[in-house]
Amino acid sequence: MMNFCSIDDVADPIGWIGKAIELQKKIENGGPLDKSGKSICLLFFNPSLRTRLSMQKAAFNLGIESFVFNLSSEGWQLEFEDGVVMNGSKSEHIVEAAGVISSYFDAVGIRSFASLSDKANDYAEQVLSQFVKHCSIPVVNMESATLHPLQSFADMITIEEYKKVSKPKVVLTWAPHPKALPQAVANSFLQWGNQMDYDLVVTHPQGYDLDPSMVGEAKVEYDQKKAFEGADFIYAKNWSAFQDANYGQVVSQDMNWTVNQEKMNLTNDAKFMHCLPIRRNVIATDEVLDSDSSIIMPQAKHRITSAQMVLKEVLEIK
Amino acid sequence: MMNFCSIDDVADPIGWIGKAIELQKKIENGGPLDKSGKSICLLFFNPSLRTRLSMQKAAFNLGIESFVFNLSSEGWQLEFEDGVVMNGSKSEHIVEAAGVISSYFDAVGIRSFASLSDKANDYAEQVLSQFVKHCSIPVVNMESATLHPLQSFADMITIEEYKKVSKPKVVLTWAPHPKALPQAVANSFLQWGNQMDYDLVVTHPQGYDLDPSMVGEAKVEYDQKKAFEGADFIYAKNWSAFQDANYGQVVSQDMNWTVNQEKMNLTNDAKFMHCLPIRRNVIATDEVLDSDSSIIMPQAKHRITSAQMVLKEVLEIK
Amino acid sequence: MMNFCSIDDVADPIGWIGKAIELQKKIENGGPLDKSGKSICLLFFNPSLRTRLSMQKAAFNLGIESFVFNLSSEGWQLEFEDGVVMNGSKSEHIVEAAGVISSYFDAVGIRSFASLSDKANDYAEQVLSQFVKHCSIPVVNMESATLHPLQSFADMITIEEYKKVSKPKVVLTWAPHPKALPQAVANSFLQWGNQMDYDLVVTHPQGYDLDPSMVGEAKVEYDQKKAFEGADFIYAKNWSAFQDANYGQVVSQDMNWTVNQEKMNLTNDAKFMHCLPIRRNVIATDEVLDSDSSIIMPQAKHRITSAQMVLKEVLEIK
Repeated sequence: MMNFCSIDDVADPIGWIGKAIELQKKIENGGPLDKSGKSICLLFFNPSLRTRLSMQKAAFNLGIESFVFNLSSEGWQLEFEDGVVMNGSKSEHIVEAAGVISSYFDAVGIRSFASLSDKANDYAEQVLSQFVKHCSIPVVNMESATLHPLQSFADMITIEEYKKVSKPKVVLTWAPHPKALPQAVANSFLQWGNQMDYDLVVTHPQGYDLDPSMVGEAKVEYDQKKAFEGADFIYAKNWSAFQDANYGQVVSQDMNWTVNQEKMNLTNDAKFMHCLPIRRNVIATDEVLDSDSSIIMPQAKHRITSAQMVLKEVLEIK
Repeated sequence: MMNFCSIDDVADPIGWIGKAIELQKKIENGGPLDKSGKSICLLFFNPSLRTRLSMQKAAFNLGIESFVFNLSSEGWQLEFEDGVVMNGSKSEHIVEAAGVISSYFDAVGIRSFASLSDKANDYAEQVLSQFVKHCSIPVVNMESATLHPLQSFADMITIEEYKKVSKPKVVLTWAPHPKALPQAVANSFLQWGNQMDYDLVVTHPQGYDLDPSMVGEAKVEYDQKKAFEGADFIYAKNWSAFQDANYGQVVSQDMNWTVNQEKMNLTNDAKFMHCLPIRRNVIATDEVLDSDSSIIMPQAKHRITSAQMVLKEVLEIK
Repeated sequence: MMNFCSIDDVADPIGWIGKAIELQKKIENGGPLDKSGKSICLLFFNPSLRTRLSMQKAAFNLGIESFVFNLSSEGWQLEFEDGVVMNGSKSEHIVEAAGVISSYFDAVGIRSFASLSDKANDYAEQVLSQFVKHCSIPVVNMESATLHPLQSFADMITIEEYKKVSKPKVVLTWAPHPKALPQAVANSFLQWGNQMDYDLVVTHPQGYDLDPSMVGEAKVEYDQKKAFEGADFIYAKNWSAFQDANYGQVVSQDMNWTVNQEKMNLTNDAKFMHCLPIRRNVIATDEVLDSDSSIIMPQAKHRITSAQMVLKEVLEIK
């Protein structure tokens, strides 16, 4: 039995890229696979559009039944601490919730964002790790406090499809955003990027350094324009501060970091990527997003390619 | 590829009525069609009971997989304006949302009510038309700012089934309601009614005149009792004011316009219709609704007949 | 046509236990049944985790399509009174809602909790009985104001599986809880227990006596420890007061009634049961819940066993 919580659960991530593309082609040509009789519960603690719809569509394509459950609107609050006297607002303990879901379904997907207030809890992946601990079925990370591997796997598939050189220069750039966002997409992109044959660079303002264990071998560059030089892929994303002093806060909304055409002109005709949803003229300008360089649409579509491969493996679909 | 946004998308509305009834009989006798491998996303900006359930049931009957997405509770706000710096409350632009949905599904249904505050935007069908513009898949109108063609098509099917003369007198009557309601159902009913061989009349208090382009050839009559004389069908519906001075407002709650048995006695033993939900003893009395003249239940059931035909055509189900 | 609103709808409840277990084994070994072409609408006026997911999974296992509808978030308020002038907050009358759902689906499940403020309405089962009255399709009780028969049926299946003597001593014990809860689970457990070959006991503090018509032949014991002596099954559950003077209120939160190991030691090595969600260290201690005596997980899993049998019968699945 395998989980899909991070790249660490994948023995051969590079091999998976090819297999995922093959599977997608097979389904594109032959239609959805026969019903497998298997089912997955998709549990959402937070809103989702692409993740939910791509997971449901991927499940449908594989003949898997998916059941969506929005905990905040349809259920109740869960308790994740052990030994608590549960006389407050939380109606059910993770032990029972995970146990019941394990006995009903063949796998479970979990989306639970970072609190952005309790760094220790967030980076301990309290929610996801408790599900892993108490579930007896495979757990799929649909974006956790610190990671979003379904997204990153889709990103790597997209880069594989669009790369023009064997070792592309791939640049993850911070960009401004009005609200505090988790570090999950950026973290996960770097984790996966470190396993690929990339010239990997991350660029952001001072104060936005990410967890060094996520950054790994990637080069950190505080000068965005310098980072863009010769890039084959520009991956834009906002994240809030990781440093203890202002964890989870917006320390800058510097619009000089917005990706525009002038900056794209510094690159090696780079493709522009973003995980979506994207705020136009904040993260990147209309000009960039509406140009031929933008591959955000095929990238979003590969969320299905990525989800299909993961579901096929964790649910052992033949 | 065809959309279903209004009657203008249907080459032969009268022909469709017969075909829809045939398809419904085929499914009633033979059960749901085989799985088509096709899928539709049903996007709701507003609440829905009949529209959602009839669309899901129709999809099921045709072997189409439907995926419901409630944007307000499960997603986030969309931006519909071009060129905006998106640093406010809206997280995603229609361009990306429509693009992604187009790449995941074979068709999309949209429900988005009128604002009732911005007449120009409402009558420009801002939301629906932006989806049409940016989607590369068929768009089905599940009630837009100004039209509800799935309802009207069901209404025409119902009239076809119950009419006793070849050219029935069909009367759309305004009725009181405590809240401001869109004009969509009334507009759409008149649009479709104009294409049928009806003696079509619309009656309402002064100040409730509808868009002349919707009214078309229908006769406008401000005296409700006069309008009812000799009618074969009474279609009751509330709508808010269309006129610029008080657009979207309740200008009258005159309970003298409630449809009661006394008024029904003026008709040619007319059938009573309403799109539901209906407020009893406000729109029409219990006596009328519980009489044999009421055909609101078969009318509601024809929402499936209507949805099936539309889905079959837009998704090219064999 | 049969409903499943209470045990009174089941001709042979004991026979059903064996059949439900057989059906579950058949599905466990052979996978989901072929598509039946039938569909059920699951209507929720209140939140649900196990009930919703077990009903959906049971439907899936039987080849039945299930459609979930959350009235509070996706729909609008229903009017249940007859003859009302509906000019308030309620948009649709039960007569029309039930009629439409009856014409769309082959069965309907209803979850509607007690108000806990209007005892007469609650015990008249206003909501459920109005659906039964106005629906022309089978109605399944997914927890009503006063009963939860899907739960109780699962409870009886679980006791059947774990009992070591032919006539076990089965003890329903009240336990503290911070919020006012309905009496439905306790009522229904007693109704079913009265039909079984149990030595049935209910224990609770003074002031928590249940409806005598629910208690039936069960022995009432106000001394919890005395009740536990020699018990084969301890079923813990909180409920609010039934008596007129403080109907629906929390009259005690006495933590001396929490089920702990010391009390379990008084039993005949009893199994511990609860319907979930359970508040740890309030209803029962971690020690009890994490011991081998706890069978809350198999009990929760039998919600599928129970739902399958009910759906098979009401929908006449072959």
